[in-house]
Amino acid sequence: MSSFEKIKLQLRAFSEARDWDQFHSPKNLAMALVVEAAELAEHFQWLTEAKSAALNTDKLAAVAEEIADIQIFLVRLADKLDIDLDKAIARKMELNEHRYPVEKARGNARKYTEFDDGD
Amino acid sequence: MSSFEKIKLQLRAFSEARDWDQFHSPKNLAMALVVEAAELAEHFQWLTEAKSAALNTDKLAAVAEEIADIQIFLVRLADKLDIDLDKAIARKMELNEHRYPVEKARGNARKYTEFDDGD
Amino acid sequence: MSSFEKIKLQLRAFSEARDWDQFHSPKNLAMALVVEAAELAEHFQWLTEAKSAALNTDKLAAVAEEIADIQIFLVRLADKLDIDLDKAIARKMELNEHRYPVEKARGNARKYTEFDDGD
Amino acid sequence: MSSFEKIKLQLRAFSEARDWDQFHSPKNLAMALVVEAAELAEHFQWLTEAKSAALNTDKLAAVAEEIADIQIFLVRLADKLDIDLDKAIARKMELNEHRYPVEKARGNARKYTEFDDGD
Repeated sequence: MSSFEKIKLQLRAFSEARDWDQFHSPKNLAMALVVEAAELAEHFQWLTEAKSAALNTDKLAAVAEEIADIQIFLVRLADKLDIDLDKAIARKMELNEHRYPVEKARGNARKYTEFDDGD
Repeated sequence: MSSFEKIKLQLRAFSEARDWDQFHSPKNLAMALVVEAAELAEHFQWLTEAKSAALNTDKLAAVAEEIADIQIFLVRLADKLDIDLDKAIARKMELNEHRYPVEKARGNARKYTEFDDGD
Repeated sequence: MSSFEKIKLQLRAFSEARDWDQFHSPKNLAMALVVEAAELAEHFQWLTEAKSAALNTDKLAAVAEEIADIQIFLVRLADKLDIDLDKAIARKMELNEHRYPVEKARGNARKYTEFDDGD
Repeated sequence: MSSFEKIKLQLRAFSEARDWDQFHSPKNLAMALVVEAAELAEHFQWLTEAKSAALNTDKLAAVAEEIADIQIFLVRLADKLDIDLDKAIARKMELNEHRYPVEKARGNARKYTEFDDGD
């Protein structure tokens, strides 16, 4: 079974036991997801890029917890919308291969919509 | 191999081919993650909760793409910080079991830090 | 003097006294701004729309504090980029008048880019 | 009249003419605010801090537009919650003076809740 499937089933049981389905509309879950993503970002906001790659153990544990929260809401939202995460990711990675061909994307961070700009 | 492991390896190859590691500091990836989470939220911002659960096919495909983007940056960030996603999630779900005991959490959306409040 | 001008000068003095300019790159301020906006959103994430309009006094005070945080970072960022907030807002409101003509926008929440869609 | 008062009245007229009050619950406005804040952040996500302070004219105009969007939703949300922005900001800045005394805050970006930590 895919990791996503396994987490999905665990989360269903967790929510059911707490009668939380009433709160888990896709709208609410999407909102909770941004909130969690911002809590993650908060750990990095005043750090230089270099320091963001050299967190101490406590900070790293806190960051891992935020990452897990995001993952949890992401799987939950996909479940509520009946989206197959494994397939959605495979499809997006294929799309990215096309949107960001190596010769155009190499060494720059431009969005694919900006490739024809002289910038 | 875990789904996360598989995606991680694919993303490493993808980034290496494009020389994108230079942009992928944890700080930048965390920022990109919030941006993607907000793009997801944008699809839902003016919808009622009921309508957010009844998206048409086009909207659903667009949402699935955003969800995949979040997943991609999440795996990438965890990789850069050397965080094992499977373990981080297992740990957080165990923590949530303790923080949200069924008898206290049932039917309400309070945060565990608010359980002793009279509200 | 415009409210924005007044706040801008206060914030300059506040930051200077604390030697915080070193942290206030536009990148960092933009990141801090999303984080604050998400802290605001957190207050609303599990509420129905109706309940979000009927906060109790404590909640309202907490929300007002978050709103002030956002305003503070917004003025600070505009200052760092030398953007005149009064002018930027006037310009955007004029633009919105054109993008959302009453006859097309009345009673729907579509984005101006979607006006020709049959949807 | 305060800048905020002026913008507030303009936005009321704008929304009324379009019958948009039905969409402007505090919950929805808070969500829209995070989305706009993230659109702003997107402009900076792959830039170094130094480059984020040296935007070209086009980028700066785009950023100014996003800043205006945030300001607009912020004023609108405050109006819907009957929060006086001028007062809320004055109160928060006073609070910040107490939370971040110069001698403790000088030259570091720690949150006031972390001041007693040895770090």
